[in-house]
Amino acid sequence: MKDYHFIFGQTPSRIFIREEVPSLDALLGETGAPKALLVCDTHGEYLARKILGSRSDPLCVLEPGEAAKGWASVERILAAACRSGLGRDGLFLGIGGGVVTDLAAFAASIYMRGAQLCLVSTTLLGMVDAAVGGKTGFDLLGIKNLAGTFYPAARVYLPLEALKTLPPEQWKSGMGELLKTAILDGAPEALDQAKALMPFMRDVSAGSRSFAGGVYPILEEIIGRSVLIKGRIVEADPRESSGGRALLNLGHTFGHALEAAAGLGVLSHGEAVAWGLVRSCELGFALGITPENRAREIKETVAGCGYETASPHPLIKDPALFMRALSGDKKKKAGVLAFVVPNAAGAELVSAASMPPGLLEKIINGDPT
Amino acid sequence: MKDYHFIFGQTPSRIFIREEVPSLDALLGETGAPKALLVCDTHGEYLARKILGSRSDPLCVLEPGEAAKGWASVERILAAACRSGLGRDGLFLGIGGGVVTDLAAFAASIYMRGAQLCLVSTTLLGMVDAAVGGKTGFDLLGIKNLAGTFYPAARVYLPLEALKTLPPEQWKSGMGELLKTAILDGAPEALDQAKALMPFMRDVSAGSRSFAGGVYPILEEIIGRSVLIKGRIVEADPRESSGGRALLNLGHTFGHALEAAAGLGVLSHGEAVAWGLVRSCELGFALGITPENRAREIKETVAGCGYETASPHPLIKDPALFMRALSGDKKKKAGVLAFVVPNAAGAELVSAASMPPGLLEKIINGDPT
Repeated sequence: MKDYHFIFGQTPSRIFIREEVPSLDALLGETGAPKALLVCDTHGEYLARKILGSRSDPLCVLEPGEAAKGWASVERILAAACRSGLGRDGLFLGIGGGVVTDLAAFAASIYMRGAQLCLVSTTLLGMVDAAVGGKTGFDLLGIKNLAGTFYPAARVYLPLEALKTLPPEQWKSGMGELLKTAILDGAPEALDQAKALMPFMRDVSAGSRSFAGGVYPILEEIIGRSVLIKGRIVEADPRESSGGRALLNLGHTFGHALEAAAGLGVLSHGEAVAWGLVRSCELGFALGITPENRAREIKETVAGCGYETASPHPLIKDPALFMRALSGDKKKKAGVLAFVVPNAAGAELVSAASMPPGLLEKIINGDPT
Repeated sequence: MKDYHFIFGQTPSRIFIREEVPSLDALLGETGAPKALLVCDTHGEYLARKILGSRSDPLCVLEPGEAAKGWASVERILAAACRSGLGRDGLFLGIGGGVVTDLAAFAASIYMRGAQLCLVSTTLLGMVDAAVGGKTGFDLLGIKNLAGTFYPAARVYLPLEALKTLPPEQWKSGMGELLKTAILDGAPEALDQAKALMPFMRDVSAGSRSFAGGVYPILEEIIGRSVLIKGRIVEADPRESSGGRALLNLGHTFGHALEAAAGLGVLSHGEAVAWGLVRSCELGFALGITPENRAREIKETVAGCGYETASPHPLIKDPALFMRALSGDKKKKAGVLAFVVPNAAGAELVSAASMPPGLLEKIINGDPT
């Protein structure tokens, strides 16, 4: 299966697409760590126990879901590490979706000012996004990832077997980020390839198609493509200082505000991003950046994947709250919001300062013309 | 006055010894930040207000003392930043002793995955130690700095005027770190110079000598020497990976355990370190590393500064608790404790694995022979 080697900032980060989860014995051998702390949630505990095998390293099992992504969980992880006598040469091993890997990675980054870190990503969303690129974090004061660090994992495993039991809404959430990366990719076949995955995912999650046989090569190809695109963008601008990495926020400025307005955890991240992709197309088209046929193709693809694309979004009860969440986005430069919009070959950044007054409100209220 | 330019990891960090505090207007100009959050404690609020001048940037005032060095304070700082709309290009300005600068720096390092950071150190201990070298952190689960990051401040100001009101116990605490750096320095005059500061400090803190006239050049010389020694050690090994930076732990492995056994905040950090310096000499002498005359000179200097040097320390009520705290030290390598002991020219690291069984217990119980 495929391996990818990146250097994020100064830190080498290797991504491995595999059929199965790695064994802890092998991981300890590769990292030289004397001991590990495994971090998972109740959904991922069976995989964590498979990784653990017959070893007796400590296991910290968190509650599942976005609601667990707070300081209380970070403290639980740190306490488990401390109680089991983990040193700073110990290994934090985060096993799960984006919430668990972000939390475990954050905890590793601050434990004794930085312990060893490996991740095993078990959801499509995590594999194509959260587990790759070094961002860690947790939600604070009702704001997604308000606190976090940049701390790339030395090794990230993407075990495709974990997707066997992925529920339909999780496939759908991952698909949102896959579509985003395909738009950034810019190659004509990228969107088609991502689109072709959709009926397959529906079948698998409905149980009408088994995971045996030729499934892994397809997943490996599509996930690998996404990892490569994201990894290269992060390599060029690991700490989001030159603007390159900011392209990964395509759909996210609108999406994060939607998540905040709907209440954290009500919508899946991918659904929010997918809705944001459509808004980005409308914004880019209104600004003369997104070609009409590209905007149409993206909107049709997003709708074809079963996402809500209408504006105003039915979950936005209070447009003023949405606008406040939008203007609180942490990607501001000198106090001015920045948006990523698709262009002919990929996507580009535009500053809200260069937009006609009222344009954002029109787009959010469903009147982009 | 003196300026020092270091590069800690990849981050340039400039240290300025000045008579007075800088102005916020100047700081914002130098960093390009649109806005600042000033962080101080109730003792340092007068200096924070002097720095603020006529500007209206937000101020977060913490309770003073080691007891405030927990997550609750970090969260207060982050909430103040968030409430005032600080972006990631905003400036966190920590003004105070080591507790405040460590907390403000940690908060800056995780706010939106890293905001801008400058520090104004207002105690002798902070100037010669905490504010220089990029370590941030807070206490967790009763363990000093269990959580933290490596995040050097772009600019660190050491305003000597702040020492005018420094209470005697704070002079004494700073002196412990000054003596440590003088031992690492290795130059024959370093210890004498540090020692010569002691009666001067006593006079100043007793009010029998004013701060006017020729005081600043003396402080500038001694503090500058200490900054230079520490800065060079950190430059060579910023993240304590090669062992060079570990030398700065001279006296600290014993000292931290003493602080833990006495209860956090009962002893000043410098007092604990000073006691640890004497233990390090006894350990080094027993191992044949510290020459007898050097061990004697260090012990006499520490005693001459008015520190408790006896073993067992009167505040160690439970030697077993002390040994547990010692073996929980976060500077372990592969589970084995490491100690720094003075040698003829400076100091060196020794692993507990190479020590005769029972030696540590003997030293702690006052029977090092």
